[in-house]
Amino acid sequence: MLHRNHFVWVGLHELDTQLLKSIQQQFGLHDLAVEDAHNAHQRPKLETYGDNIFLVLRTVQIKSAGFHLEFGETHFFLAHNFIITIRHGSTLSYNQVRARCENTPELLAKGPAFALYAVMDNIVDQYFPVIEMLEKELDEVKDEIFGNKPTRGTTQRIYELKRELLEVKRVITPLIDICNRLMRFDIKLVPDDTRPYFRDVYDHAIRLNEMLETTRDLVTAALEANFSLTSISQSEVSKKFAGWAAIIGVPTMIAGIYGMNFETMPKLHWHYAYPVVLLVTFALCIVLYIFFRRSGWL
Amino acid sequence: MLHRNHFVWVGLHELDTQLLKSIQQQFGLHDLAVEDAHNAHQRPKLETYGDNIFLVLRTVQIKSAGFHLEFGETHFFLAHNFIITIRHGSTLSYNQVRARCENTPELLAKGPAFALYAVMDNIVDQYFPVIEMLEKELDEVKDEIFGNKPTRGTTQRIYELKRELLEVKRVITPLIDICNRLMRFDIKLVPDDTRPYFRDVYDHAIRLNEMLETTRDLVTAALEANFSLTSISQSEVSKKFAGWAAIIGVPTMIAGIYGMNFETMPKLHWHYAYPVVLLVTFALCIVLYIFFRRSGWL
Amino acid sequence: MLHRNHFVWVGLHELDTQLLKSIQQQFGLHDLAVEDAHNAHQRPKLETYGDNIFLVLRTVQIKSAGFHLEFGETHFFLAHNFIITIRHGSTLSYNQVRARCENTPELLAKGPAFALYAVMDNIVDQYFPVIEMLEKELDEVKDEIFGNKPTRGTTQRIYELKRELLEVKRVITPLIDICNRLMRFDIKLVPDDTRPYFRDVYDHAIRLNEMLETTRDLVTAALEANFSLTSISQSEVSKKFAGWAAIIGVPTMIAGIYGMNFETMPKLHWHYAYPVVLLVTFALCIVLYIFFRRSGWL
Amino acid sequence: MLHRNHFVWVGLHELDTQLLKSIQQQFGLHDLAVEDAHNAHQRPKLETYGDNIFLVLRTVQIKSAGFHLEFGETHFFLAHNFIITIRHGSTLSYNQVRARCENTPELLAKGPAFALYAVMDNIVDQYFPVIEMLEKELDEVKDEIFGNKPTRGTTQRIYELKRELLEVKRVITPLIDICNRLMRFDIKLVPDDTRPYFRDVYDHAIRLNEMLETTRDLVTAALEANFSLTSISQSEVSKKFAGWAAIIGVPTMIAGIYGMNFETMPKLHWHYAYPVVLLVTFALCIVLYIFFRRSGWL
Amino acid sequence: MLHRNHFVWVGLHELDTQLLKSIQQQFGLHDLAVEDAHNAHQRPKLETYGDNIFLVLRTVQIKSAGFHLEFGETHFFLAHNFIITIRHGSTLSYNQVRARCENTPELLAKGPAFALYAVMDNIVDQYFPVIEMLEKELDEVKDEIFGNKPTRGTTQRIYELKRELLEVKRVITPLIDICNRLMRFDIKLVPDDTRPYFRDVYDHAIRLNEMLETTRDLVTAALEANFSLTSISQSEVSKKFAGWAAIIGVPTMIAGIYGMNFETMPKLHWHYAYPVVLLVTFALCIVLYIFFRRSGWL
Repeated sequence: MLHRNHFVWVGLHELDTQLLKSIQQQFGLHDLAVEDAHNAHQRPKLETYGDNIFLVLRTVQIKSAGFHLEFGETHFFLAHNFIITIRHGSTLSYNQVRARCENTPELLAKGPAFALYAVMDNIVDQYFPVIEMLEKELDEVKDEIFGNKPTRGTTQRIYELKRELLEVKRVITPLIDICNRLMRFDIKLVPDDTRPYFRDVYDHAIRLNEMLETTRDLVTAALEANFSLTSISQSEVSKKFAGWAAIIGVPTMIAGIYGMNFETMPKLHWHYAYPVVLLVTFALCIVLYIFFRRSGWL
Repeated sequence: MLHRNHFVWVGLHELDTQLLKSIQQQFGLHDLAVEDAHNAHQRPKLETYGDNIFLVLRTVQIKSAGFHLEFGETHFFLAHNFIITIRHGSTLSYNQVRARCENTPELLAKGPAFALYAVMDNIVDQYFPVIEMLEKELDEVKDEIFGNKPTRGTTQRIYELKRELLEVKRVITPLIDICNRLMRFDIKLVPDDTRPYFRDVYDHAIRLNEMLETTRDLVTAALEANFSLTSISQSEVSKKFAGWAAIIGVPTMIAGIYGMNFETMPKLHWHYAYPVVLLVTFALCIVLYIFFRRSGWL
Repeated sequence: MLHRNHFVWVGLHELDTQLLKSIQQQFGLHDLAVEDAHNAHQRPKLETYGDNIFLVLRTVQIKSAGFHLEFGETHFFLAHNFIITIRHGSTLSYNQVRARCENTPELLAKGPAFALYAVMDNIVDQYFPVIEMLEKELDEVKDEIFGNKPTRGTTQRIYELKRELLEVKRVITPLIDICNRLMRFDIKLVPDDTRPYFRDVYDHAIRLNEMLETTRDLVTAALEANFSLTSISQSEVSKKFAGWAAIIGVPTMIAGIYGMNFETMPKLHWHYAYPVVLLVTFALCIVLYIFFRRSGWL
Repeated sequence: MLHRNHFVWVGLHELDTQLLKSIQQQFGLHDLAVEDAHNAHQRPKLETYGDNIFLVLRTVQIKSAGFHLEFGETHFFLAHNFIITIRHGSTLSYNQVRARCENTPELLAKGPAFALYAVMDNIVDQYFPVIEMLEKELDEVKDEIFGNKPTRGTTQRIYELKRELLEVKRVITPLIDICNRLMRFDIKLVPDDTRPYFRDVYDHAIRLNEMLETTRDLVTAALEANFSLTSISQSEVSKKFAGWAAIIGVPTMIAGIYGMNFETMPKLHWHYAYPVVLLVTFALCIVLYIFFRRSGWL
Repeated sequence: MLHRNHFVWVGLHELDTQLLKSIQQQFGLHDLAVEDAHNAHQRPKLETYGDNIFLVLRTVQIKSAGFHLEFGETHFFLAHNFIITIRHGSTLSYNQVRARCENTPELLAKGPAFALYAVMDNIVDQYFPVIEMLEKELDEVKDEIFGNKPTRGTTQRIYELKRELLEVKRVITPLIDICNRLMRFDIKLVPDDTRPYFRDVYDHAIRLNEMLETTRDLVTAALEANFSLTSISQSEVSKKFAGWAAIIGVPTMIAGIYGMNFETMPKLHWHYAYPVVLLVTFALCIVLYIFFRRSGWL
């Protein structure tokens, strides 16, 4: 069915069992690989069956509405004369990638490995906006932490951000290992002049991973800052309360003393006693206020 | 006793010393391996004795009643012409596995290594519901943390979840290493066309391990969120208390002042003094209330 | 002095310099090894001098009275025709081990490496009760944390447990490396059929190490639970205090108001004013109490 | 165009697409490397294309005004007869480096690898003042933590310092790997007598990395100290408040008791009752003050 | 100038540029090594130039007055016929080491590598008292934490201890790698019978590193204990305050009630009302006191 120097490119989407079976027979795919290709929810991996390759990559996309990610998967079967891509879940069609490839026939002539590179490059390029969104979210969380008082909402946002980072990390980290293997010389399906292309994808994967790591470290730092500020804020509340309690407590005490019912309390009969006591008490409160202000308690 | 291309499959359950001894003599098993097989409480491991293999796997099951795990063990003796499985503790019988194998004689013909794969695959498949239960438990804990006020019960649940994760981790992590060795070429008992099956188990073990790691990281994140919310909650209590203390303290102070027993307190004799003072005090309290409300203290 | 296929087993205890010198001359031991053997306080290690081996193991024992560990050391000189063991500090005599070995002459015939195994196995077996004691201590600490209010004593117990874990870890971890080297083929003193015995010791060391790691992780989890509960407990104190302060503060305020000395306070003259005010105040306190109870503050 | 033993050194700055294309054609550069060279925002890396090298280094400079860093990039194309440097962003010109090289023609005769070394050495030398600035910032933060009360500003400074450390780390760490490869024997463009020069750069990179690690560990320690001091400070506020509340609360209580309106209160009629009660109350306050002072609460 | 089987040992201290130049010419040292030897502030490292070795070690000494460390450096140039040591900063003279070596000519006959060992051994021996001092400091900090109330001073001591540990770690850790290389067979300057001596230094370095690690882990544990105790202490303050506030607040409230000015307050006219109310109030306070005592609040 196939001549030398030609290869078939089959693109499928969430195919049914029947179709998968017929494809398996036609292309001679291994039972275990087909079973994996049938079930989604694989992790990114590269498995060799003889000289052939079964490859799983995961895709991520930002849901149009709001801060949520949609994950998908693409499975590849690769041999010297064919490449089969099977898309699961939320992924874009690879028609555009294919069209672009067909415009550079001199590159496509390198064989199915180049087609694989073209799709991988396309998938990896879609990771960048996702990580940038996470970085932007971190930035907003940071502003919330340093700008406002700590709230329950901020804590929940930090938690959600951590969760998203973990999920995206599980998508990207295995990619480094996969590219590493595609760059090495033990995989014969990748010709020598195609290896630099996979090194390029590898380089992107490393860069994405570094961005993720930095973001994760900054989330940790933001969390610690949040702890610290909550604690300082709590301390400020205590100080303010203590200060005002003193300013209210002192007049109450003085008033209590002059409210005692002793028969012989000389000052009570003095004509200006009341205004003087009031003034002294008021002055005392002012002194306390200034004192606490200076100590940074109010 | 045994012909070429045939192998014996012996399945045992917590066998007594006598039986073990007779089996050791018949199959020529090593003293140290038999000693291990006799005592349960081994960690998952693969040991070679010459070309033969002694393998320990641990099993986990969810106890029917509630959130508790039951652990068991299965020991394997593997040679080119026999496989012996010995079950300890809480494990299901492998009769079904065996029946399924016998329905695919072309696979079973690959030898005892395939029988080993069949049982391993069965054991590993039982790990998935366990990890899903732990993920579900994490989800409930998370909802408890963000939905309600922090309680002692939540803290204890987090602790228990961590303990379960550690225990399950000790069951699954050594499996990766074991599969890795079964996939490599230094173990002659595993024929070339059976290796992909162990790679499949390896892939499951990696996936399980990743799920465990993610869950553990999220438990840590949940714990930090819990700390943070406890601290914020404490801060809120302090603010609320401070606000209401002021609203109660100010009238007390004013009342104290007008309760002093000075002879000459002009305002006391004014007819409308009492209602006016009451109104002013009440107004002051309203002002304080609005002020604290706006500051987010009440 | 020695025939082929025979070997000498010399067992010593904290020997003096004189004796050590004479042994060094008789057996031709290296200066540096002898210097190490003379000073205790070595870390577990395996050093080869030509084909000969100098080995240091550390021993741990539970002091009869209470939760304290006693550490000791055993040094081994191993050659093809002799094994010398030198005990330092708190270690049991190896007479029993020797007696047991002499009862299995077919095993002892494997040479001095088997004698080494017998003693190592004995030493490693003594680690298990130590780690079980640490696990039991963790359990008690955990019960203290979740059962009672946090106390200073609990914190100190956690600290001491951590210290013990670190000390025991320093005893056990190097053992893994030592066994690994004894299992490998570059040490000629260990014959092929003796290697599985050292793999058995290796397996125990790995298991002990795992138990230590798990215990350490659980101590960390217990510590975090302790932090969390202290914080919650602090929060509860604040709430309770705030609640009761309100219940005491409100009557004080009302009493203050009716204690003012205005001439014209209509209600004062009403006959039932006093009991009515008292009742209203009391009712208010009840309302507050119910309110705080429902909010979980009391 | 080029004779043996000569090499061309081309220095460019943020070149336009047109120029880059013509250079690509003239020097025969690989498409992927040129694409990378065109886009800035690469991570430091070394890629070989056949015997040629494409190298990316990042530069850091302290902005003249204040504590902010400016990052740039330099890309290198290296072959046996040319070296091309392309500067992006905030970097100094390499004219001085070149001039110095031309003054030591015996070193420059070692070929383009020495020119590469000269520029790398220059770039790495600019990292030292950056790290010293971060160390100085840490020192100031530390003084702020231990000298003053904890403030929000300190927390933000710690966060920013952590961020800067992460960013600088991403610049320096990959350098270690790059130098390592340039020191090894698989890169033919670096002659044997030039390798020690790259080992010198490697040594600087290791030193810089150690300084970064130490600074990061000290920032963590400073953060923990900050937490601890905030908590102690909070405790001090509580103690002070409690002490003064008692000193104000006791006279208020006593005054309240003598303000009760019972008809028969014998002491009220005693002539010296008032001053005596005042004195006793005052003495009580003094006693409380001394007591709290001694307990360290005031 | 030098005969076979002889070697020159040159010991220098912070030499000037002139002298260094003349030495470089006489012994044929590499430019880069001489540059490093001229500048102090190197990290410990071993560099080979052909068959020759350039080695940097750092020295630590306890300053006579108090808890402060002084760091120094020693640089070595080693060839088959000479060893040059250059001391920088705070280091002791190596005259004693040299004298001791000259007393064992049979060892010194092993060549310059043995002289290197003698000096290294001397330097490493000086690390032990430093680490013991750090362990002692940790012990004192621990006693301060568990014995007294948490203070700012303790926090600062923990910080300083951490800093010292990091600094000493940077001195010791690279030593392990250096010894490792001196023990291996790729360095020809170290004859076979001298390697065990470097293994001895290696063993010391490993031991020192372990002591450092343990101390660091214990400092972390002490810090956590400090956090925990600060938090508990804060909780205790709150409880005590709450308890006494109730004991003072209840009489104040009762007194306020009997201080109301209603005309008709039957109890006021009863003759024994005052003492009875006083007694009841007093009894109430006693009850509260006992209650709080039992609850552990006072």
